[in-house]
Amino acid sequence: MSFATAIAANDVSPAAIDAAPSAVRGEVTVRLAMRHAGERVLRLRYELVGRAHAPVVLVAGGISAHRHIAANAVFGEKGWADGLVGSGRALDPARRRLLGFDFIGADGDLDVPIDTADQADAVALLLDALGIDCLHGYVGYSYGALVGQQLAIRHPQRLGRLVAVSGAHRPHPYASAWRALQRRAVALGQLQCAETHGLALARQFAMLSYRTPEEFGERFDAAPEVVNGRVRVAAEDYLDAAGAQYVARTRVDAYLRLSESIDLHRIDPAAVGVPTLVVAVEGDRLVPLSDLVSLVEGLGTRGSLRVLRSPYGHDAFLKETDRIDAILANALRLPGENA
Amino acid sequence: MSFATAIAANDVSPAAIDAAPSAVRGEVTVRLAMRHAGERVLRLRYELVGRAHAPVVLVAGGISAHRHIAANAVFGEKGWADGLVGSGRALDPARRRLLGFDFIGADGDLDVPIDTADQADAVALLLDALGIDCLHGYVGYSYGALVGQQLAIRHPQRLGRLVAVSGAHRPHPYASAWRALQRRAVALGQLQCAETHGLALARQFAMLSYRTPEEFGERFDAAPEVVNGRVRVAAEDYLDAAGAQYVARTRVDAYLRLSESIDLHRIDPAAVGVPTLVVAVEGDRLVPLSDLVSLVEGLGTRGSLRVLRSPYGHDAFLKETDRIDAILANALRLPGENA
Repeated sequence: MSFATAIAANDVSPAAIDAAPSAVRGEVTVRLAMRHAGERVLRLRYELVGRAHAPVVLVAGGISAHRHIAANAVFGEKGWADGLVGSGRALDPARRRLLGFDFIGADGDLDVPIDTADQADAVALLLDALGIDCLHGYVGYSYGALVGQQLAIRHPQRLGRLVAVSGAHRPHPYASAWRALQRRAVALGQLQCAETHGLALARQFAMLSYRTPEEFGERFDAAPEVVNGRVRVAAEDYLDAAGAQYVARTRVDAYLRLSESIDLHRIDPAAVGVPTLVVAVEGDRLVPLSDLVSLVEGLGTRGSLRVLRSPYGHDAFLKETDRIDAILANALRLPGENA
Repeated sequence: MSFATAIAANDVSPAAIDAAPSAVRGEVTVRLAMRHAGERVLRLRYELVGRAHAPVVLVAGGISAHRHIAANAVFGEKGWADGLVGSGRALDPARRRLLGFDFIGADGDLDVPIDTADQADAVALLLDALGIDCLHGYVGYSYGALVGQQLAIRHPQRLGRLVAVSGAHRPHPYASAWRALQRRAVALGQLQCAETHGLALARQFAMLSYRTPEEFGERFDAAPEVVNGRVRVAAEDYLDAAGAQYVARTRVDAYLRLSESIDLHRIDPAAVGVPTLVVAVEGDRLVPLSDLVSLVEGLGTRGSLRVLRSPYGHDAFLKETDRIDAILANALRLPGENA
């Protein structure tokens, strides 16, 4: 391939995967020609779970997601999408192989602008290394949906279908402004030798964009308190916890570069080369329904749309797991499988 | 009065005001019993503009507003609501006397929690000092609307009618969370002598709450740029200007304490003692229409509602000046005045 080359697969060979227990992790080292940063040697980390030879579904989430989609027999810790994986689910490891990966830049070691096209090229290299010619499906949520669009444009032969949840063909300018300010909060923290403090604040602002006023209205309607002469509102305990949890597991540069990467994303929907189901959430404050309608229009006959209404807004994919599962079951069904 | 006493009116007497040119400024020193901070001696700064003996309309804006409502012959600099004041307008200095005041705390010298009830008591003291028994009307927008509600509860004999624009009986929990994070941005800046940097960031986040995605979508749809290895989105020039402009005229403590004051606000609508017109903006991200519907329900027979749709969201009062003027003209009309 011209765009890049897999130069090493350190941990595991395709043959080993087929024979392996139900879950393996590995990393492959590749040389990637990046759009804004020239050629780089990078490690691609993945986790592959499920029955050997079953159709492979790649599942990619938001910028905080990673290769560990869900707890399994080998890697028992909580995943980022546990509610969507399991027996009887569309993402059932007994009937599908589930591929997760760490976005390039997620380790915090790549301090350059990262394009969603770079991520898609990295996915193609990973598939090469794993001997996967074609994914049965690619399920992408948020940032993962953007990467999926690029994969479907740049490497359409590598996926049978795309499910793109809560991710449009370009970021909404209001959402971009919101993220730009979050990055400024990190920069302000860095100025003060309070890097994690800035990152926590950025995450807290991000939480407001991921959720909705409806949810906050339900949960945090208590009167504020005056504590040490300062007003403290009801949501602050929740926001404190969200910030602390995030900084404990996130490198600052990973956050900054993947946040930027969302804002760099621009594709031509007409160039998407595979059948694509777009899932939109009414009330999503980051990715407005109207932008996803535009995306589907641009996809032409390849595109279809499902709309959910949810008080969880942008986070609905992670929260409305039964409804998302029903959508995925339909989208990922094989000929002859039961409804 | 029990709550406080005017102890000095330094600059001007009521008689002087009647004989004065069309615009006077002054300040009165008062002793105020504050809800969270005990008794304080404070200066109340005001500007009074218009024909002597005309009905007085007090106009109060958001936490960044001040006593200078609009440019006039004596004080020619731009005001915060120029578009609403002028010949033929509902706020016409030839037919009304317009009273503006600086919120207590706006000078940055009062570093304690400030309640909207404190502001209302201060207004009552100011009216005492100026010899104004009863305002023809009180027009309050945003924070000014909250103060107006308190005035109408605590001193209903001092105003004939209230027009409360984009301000509810309590802050929405989502909006409170948003403001709490803005205050944290200031606190992060204060960690190491970057106080104005933090204040600028807080203001920039506030701008996102004042405006709407629709407006940003129209204005800032250009692709981002990579500048010195960092992604810069289209709205950042605008946000830079908004931040710089704000820090040039705002004391950090004024911002913090008035922002907190919004979050402290809680009133019982049934206690409002005067006819009240509530003006809501559909699409306001800070003050949802549904909260203003609740406010109007609580007001009972004293309440009525007007709803605007505007891409300017919370800032519609300052931007949709013709439509706001039409509403004010109707609300502030005297018997016998032309429609």
